[in-house]
Amino acid sequence: MVKGVFYGVGVGPGDPELITLKGYRVLREADVICSPKSRAEKEGVALSIVRSLLDIKQKVLELTFPMTNDKVELELYWDKAVRQILSLLKEGKKVAFITLGDPSLYSTYTYVLKKIKQAGSYPVETIPGVASFCACAAAANIPLAEGDEKLAIIPAVKDLDPLRLALQNFENIVLMKIARNYPAVVKVLAELGLEGQAIYASRCGLPDGFLKAGLLTLPEELEELEELKEMQKDYLSLIITKRSSYG
Amino acid sequence: MVKGVFYGVGVGPGDPELITLKGYRVLREADVICSPKSRAEKEGVALSIVRSLLDIKQKVLELTFPMTNDKVELELYWDKAVRQILSLLKEGKKVAFITLGDPSLYSTYTYVLKKIKQAGSYPVETIPGVASFCACAAAANIPLAEGDEKLAIIPAVKDLDPLRLALQNFENIVLMKIARNYPAVVKVLAELGLEGQAIYASRCGLPDGFLKAGLLTLPEELEELEELKEMQKDYLSLIITKRSSYG
Repeated sequence: MVKGVFYGVGVGPGDPELITLKGYRVLREADVICSPKSRAEKEGVALSIVRSLLDIKQKVLELTFPMTNDKVELELYWDKAVRQILSLLKEGKKVAFITLGDPSLYSTYTYVLKKIKQAGSYPVETIPGVASFCACAAAANIPLAEGDEKLAIIPAVKDLDPLRLALQNFENIVLMKIARNYPAVVKVLAELGLEGQAIYASRCGLPDGFLKAGLLTLPEELEELEELKEMQKDYLSLIITKRSSYG
Repeated sequence: MVKGVFYGVGVGPGDPELITLKGYRVLREADVICSPKSRAEKEGVALSIVRSLLDIKQKVLELTFPMTNDKVELELYWDKAVRQILSLLKEGKKVAFITLGDPSLYSTYTYVLKKIKQAGSYPVETIPGVASFCACAAAANIPLAEGDEKLAIIPAVKDLDPLRLALQNFENIVLMKIARNYPAVVKVLAELGLEGQAIYASRCGLPDGFLKAGLLTLPEELEELEELKEMQKDYLSLIITKRSSYG
């Protein structure tokens, strides 16, 4: 009997051409494509990337995960997703769980993967992808880190003290999922004299993507910019900053 | 007249299938492939990856950069490389500079890029790639970072204090180019009770690649392992560790 295989496939940061050859092959060969989405979305961003690559003939299993920090509620959704995936694996299906960017970085995939590994003896394979911050640095033609420099990746800044500590001890910082706390974060950057050397990107690589290099200013000024509306609302937003200036 | 274009192409971490569709296309369309290599190497690792993807008919320009921290010496090599690239761009050539992993992370490409940007008005485009640490986490089927966790990337640890600071303040750490200081680093991990939760990878994704999950032990024990010889010598080695245990 054919044995099911569980794949995690990073589809890259947005531009469909930034998927890997391997990711593209695994998707073509899969029997089922699992697409995570938030409650609000019509369709997950990762799935829309896959649609522009393939004429999807496979079964698509959409899995809804609410945007919440309530661990108990999330567990219920993860467990439900895992039950559905396990039943496909039991039938011998190749199941590809798609994720935006790289599957090891801030992805629902890793929670589901843990439970699949715990549940049984199905082979799993994770196909890495291009991380969003690598794509943003590339779009701006700037280094993320050089030589012996350190790089800190900090998501969804709530507390500003760890941010200050990182800014003082790391030459380079990536601040991910920045939309909600944008004004507070820019204030900290300004305190340290860094706001002129930061890059802001939102949905980088997607058709409505947006990239500003060296344009971050204090929140008061920013509020006058038309772009702010877009900046504040999007979950897929990040800032890259470094202590030295960009060459 | 056709205008030259300078491309930086991340070929990914080692497995040729982990190049992006875009990187693969740009390489096929390039007139010249620039391949960085150290003095000791017969051929750069990135070029050997490209060879297994393409029957290279283009001109290959091998650029030697010595493994040194002497900035003055390095500047001479960068300047020489830039002169050669500029003369190709002047002829209207599409020049693709290949790099292992992602071009924005610890790559010679970023130094060359700065000088190309300073030198003139040639268009530049950076094609991001899969970073080595993403590939290692994928090979081990573990997360690099989840939820609101922070991630620190620290190369070539010399001073152990910044490492201790990072280990105390970041949930997840990637230690790159670890070969030379391996015993000292493992000692610090052991002090903090972390050595059983680390993943060691060397040349991950290359044919002679090597991955050990949860196997890091004190240097004395390690010296008994046959693998140590390989571990200590290779520049392309890294450790991934996290404060909580892997699920």
